[in-house]
Amino acid sequence: MDQTKEILDAYVQKAVDAFQFLKRTTVQERAALMHAVADAIEALDDQLLNLAHEESALPMPRLQGEKARTVGQWRSYGDAVAKGTYLDARIDRADAEKGKNDIRKYSIGLGPVLVFGASNFPFAFSTAGGDTASAIGAGCPVLVKAHPGHPKTSQLMADTISKAVKKFGWPEGVFGHVAGDRVAGTQTLLGAYLTAHPGIQAVGFTGSQQGGKALVAVAAGREVPIPVFAEMGSVNPVFALPQLLEKNAAELAQQYVGSLTLGTGQFCTNPGIVVALAGAAFDRFKEAVQEAIAEAKPTAMLHSGIAKNYAEKKQTATAHEDVTVLAQSATDADASQGQPTVAWTSGRAFLSDAQLSEEVFGPFALLVEAESTEQLLAIAKSLEGQLTATVAATEEDLEANAALVSILQDKVGRLLFNGMPTGVEVVYAMQHGGPFPATSDPRFTSVGPDAVKRFVRPIAFQNWPENSLPAELKSSNPLQLTRVVDGVYTAAAL
Amino acid sequence: MDQTKEILDAYVQKAVDAFQFLKRTTVQERAALMHAVADAIEALDDQLLNLAHEESALPMPRLQGEKARTVGQWRSYGDAVAKGTYLDARIDRADAEKGKNDIRKYSIGLGPVLVFGASNFPFAFSTAGGDTASAIGAGCPVLVKAHPGHPKTSQLMADTISKAVKKFGWPEGVFGHVAGDRVAGTQTLLGAYLTAHPGIQAVGFTGSQQGGKALVAVAAGREVPIPVFAEMGSVNPVFALPQLLEKNAAELAQQYVGSLTLGTGQFCTNPGIVVALAGAAFDRFKEAVQEAIAEAKPTAMLHSGIAKNYAEKKQTATAHEDVTVLAQSATDADASQGQPTVAWTSGRAFLSDAQLSEEVFGPFALLVEAESTEQLLAIAKSLEGQLTATVAATEEDLEANAALVSILQDKVGRLLFNGMPTGVEVVYAMQHGGPFPATSDPRFTSVGPDAVKRFVRPIAFQNWPENSLPAELKSSNPLQLTRVVDGVYTAAAL
Repeated sequence: MDQTKEILDAYVQKAVDAFQFLKRTTVQERAALMHAVADAIEALDDQLLNLAHEESALPMPRLQGEKARTVGQWRSYGDAVAKGTYLDARIDRADAEKGKNDIRKYSIGLGPVLVFGASNFPFAFSTAGGDTASAIGAGCPVLVKAHPGHPKTSQLMADTISKAVKKFGWPEGVFGHVAGDRVAGTQTLLGAYLTAHPGIQAVGFTGSQQGGKALVAVAAGREVPIPVFAEMGSVNPVFALPQLLEKNAAELAQQYVGSLTLGTGQFCTNPGIVVALAGAAFDRFKEAVQEAIAEAKPTAMLHSGIAKNYAEKKQTATAHEDVTVLAQSATDADASQGQPTVAWTSGRAFLSDAQLSEEVFGPFALLVEAESTEQLLAIAKSLEGQLTATVAATEEDLEANAALVSILQDKVGRLLFNGMPTGVEVVYAMQHGGPFPATSDPRFTSVGPDAVKRFVRPIAFQNWPENSLPAELKSSNPLQLTRVVDGVYTAAAL
Repeated sequence: MDQTKEILDAYVQKAVDAFQFLKRTTVQERAALMHAVADAIEALDDQLLNLAHEESALPMPRLQGEKARTVGQWRSYGDAVAKGTYLDARIDRADAEKGKNDIRKYSIGLGPVLVFGASNFPFAFSTAGGDTASAIGAGCPVLVKAHPGHPKTSQLMADTISKAVKKFGWPEGVFGHVAGDRVAGTQTLLGAYLTAHPGIQAVGFTGSQQGGKALVAVAAGREVPIPVFAEMGSVNPVFALPQLLEKNAAELAQQYVGSLTLGTGQFCTNPGIVVALAGAAFDRFKEAVQEAIAEAKPTAMLHSGIAKNYAEKKQTATAHEDVTVLAQSATDADASQGQPTVAWTSGRAFLSDAQLSEEVFGPFALLVEAESTEQLLAIAKSLEGQLTATVAATEEDLEANAALVSILQDKVGRLLFNGMPTGVEVVYAMQHGGPFPATSDPRFTSVGPDAVKRFVRPIAFQNWPENSLPAELKSSNPLQLTRVVDGVYTAAAL
């Protein structure tokens, strides 16, 4: 249901007010709330899973896994917040002889954050997802714009978070939740209105390039511009190198098709393109992929719009005169499903038409056959920014292809040596964010505890009295944080 | 002299090529270059000081100090780069039982950085200034657009850096230097052309709001947007609280006028506004400021354009019907000088006209007299983003004015308890960057070793073989960096 301007303004105002409360909480107080939210989500029974299954068509085992992941995100981000890893706390003590002042710096929340729920992860990247958890961890109130694909799931998650906030006695505006498409009575998109709202200080988004770019433009046009963290997906190329292909063509094909069809290919890190040198080994790989694709069963997509979009984009890609369909699932897909499909094109054709490197969201693979190493490098160079690239290789391949690795470094946020890019682990070292247009800002990650860093800025206190310093910066170090003191990491009190 | 498009493109291309070299250097190799540049600048004799003195009118002692600061920046940023504090290196080791991969992340340079020299620091924030040092430290080639106010100084600095680069056998494009206003034969501003150039990946700028905002707009309009770090100055309010004022009105006035007139008021952190409650203590403060201003001598401004601009802006500010000039320097200023001036306005007037909170770049003070604590808080709330705010207070004042401090936190990058904001220390804990429009991006600092963070992005390696990992992420930890391993800070090898 569309919301009026007045209602939306009131939501933002509540968030603005709650920020004044949240900014005075310590990292450990926020970590406690995050654990409480995790416990509350964990305690939700099958009602949650059933709702999500109905609304997203995702299979129950996947939803169970995603629920556990979501709970794990709240806990691990909470633990990281309590440890203050994201704070970049630095203390430079006074030195009267050198005329140096006492200066201390840490990170504070930016203010209210607008989070857009994503369609493909109704738990982990939606209302109670990583953006919400990391923004609250940073000390920012969150206003979620629910994804229309799973409104009831979203509402249940929102209620769960709000209850935890209430139990803590924290202001209601710490977490808000709105649904709707437009500002009631206008043509203005609700998401654009909130992104432009002076009370909103940052935006988290996971979705299409079109949607992400539109939000970036709105944010840049504000009187006071704000950061937008839009994760817009990519084709996540796999470069299959000669020695590995020679040894393991069939095994790689199995692994590849498994990753490609996982979740009906509806992951941002779905590996949509494979590039390799022409030859007998690549031919064996192609045959094995064809067989695996033929055997793969069509599965349901998130909603009919996504299924239709997949069918259309696949149609466009395969209608290209230089593209040959090698195989598709032997079972026909119905209108709600995505039919696994693999197609082939030449390196030359790929290089001559940028359309061929566009993402087809779903289980569609394009195998690109390079005539020469030079062409393979040219293909790597031609790619836009990507979340990931995978080098399927032996260690010898890797050393012999340093030039390729060097090019890929400039293109991606995460480089894999074998394995597949789907399955984004929630760890400190994860980088889920790559050069534009994979994300709007490759300097940040939307997965892993470092996701908190998106929503903070540093503030320094000069000669500030111990009593009035935030706990995170007190000489007594009551929170036992690791800080850089006079240039050295230490968890000691001063 | 204006440059042709072809010449500019060639400069950028050299930088693009040099990035492919620089990105393979280790933090310690870059630190060595930075120390070599520091040594080379330090070794420059009076020729440098004389040139800068002629071109900027800055007095010799100031220039000697600024030279030492510049040398210190290269060294301390270099040391910090060698230590890898900015790298945010994280390693999460594989765990076969849990199905976890080995993932490692660190920060790499964004690519070629365009640096605009600033007029008011011909050494420390210009060609060889902090932006250049921190970008090279991050692993980014730098192309400097020389500030037209000190072309010879800029050229000498550029030659010094280029020589050091050459001595290291590194590609010429690691550091480039162009002068000029427009792209030859066109109306396009040279700086805008380079900011829009696809080869440029980030921009560092210190200067006016007008200039900074224009660059931000150019960067946001690119096909692939890039970050612009524009430091655009602010009025750096001083809130003089009752108990401190009661005790130390005269002393505070001395200290204040000293900071206000330092360097003819040409610092980004110049404290242009004082806010206090009406009363006898504030009256004593006003009188003492009047006396100190009357005694202060007019001094030369950087160039005639700045002197003219100061005179005009001051004229506009003091012509306001609610503004009263209290005093100006008893000595008349000539056209090249800035005449110290102090004016007064009421809190009510200040709140009713945003123009009164605009920066007047030079030694101009506006004393704002608040009728009540509520009005004082309203004044704090009405301020735009600032680099700094200073609370001149006793500890009791501070505790009694928590609401004020809370408001100021939302407005600034650095909060001072007494002292004055000029004299920005080059330390880890420094935050020189505040909410828009003080800077275009308050999430970063342009002073202190953390300035390096502006020019990097993270990249993760999954299951990457030890031999092919960058030295910064190897298990053997050959560079002895402190890294977060499985969530814990450690400098140990694994």
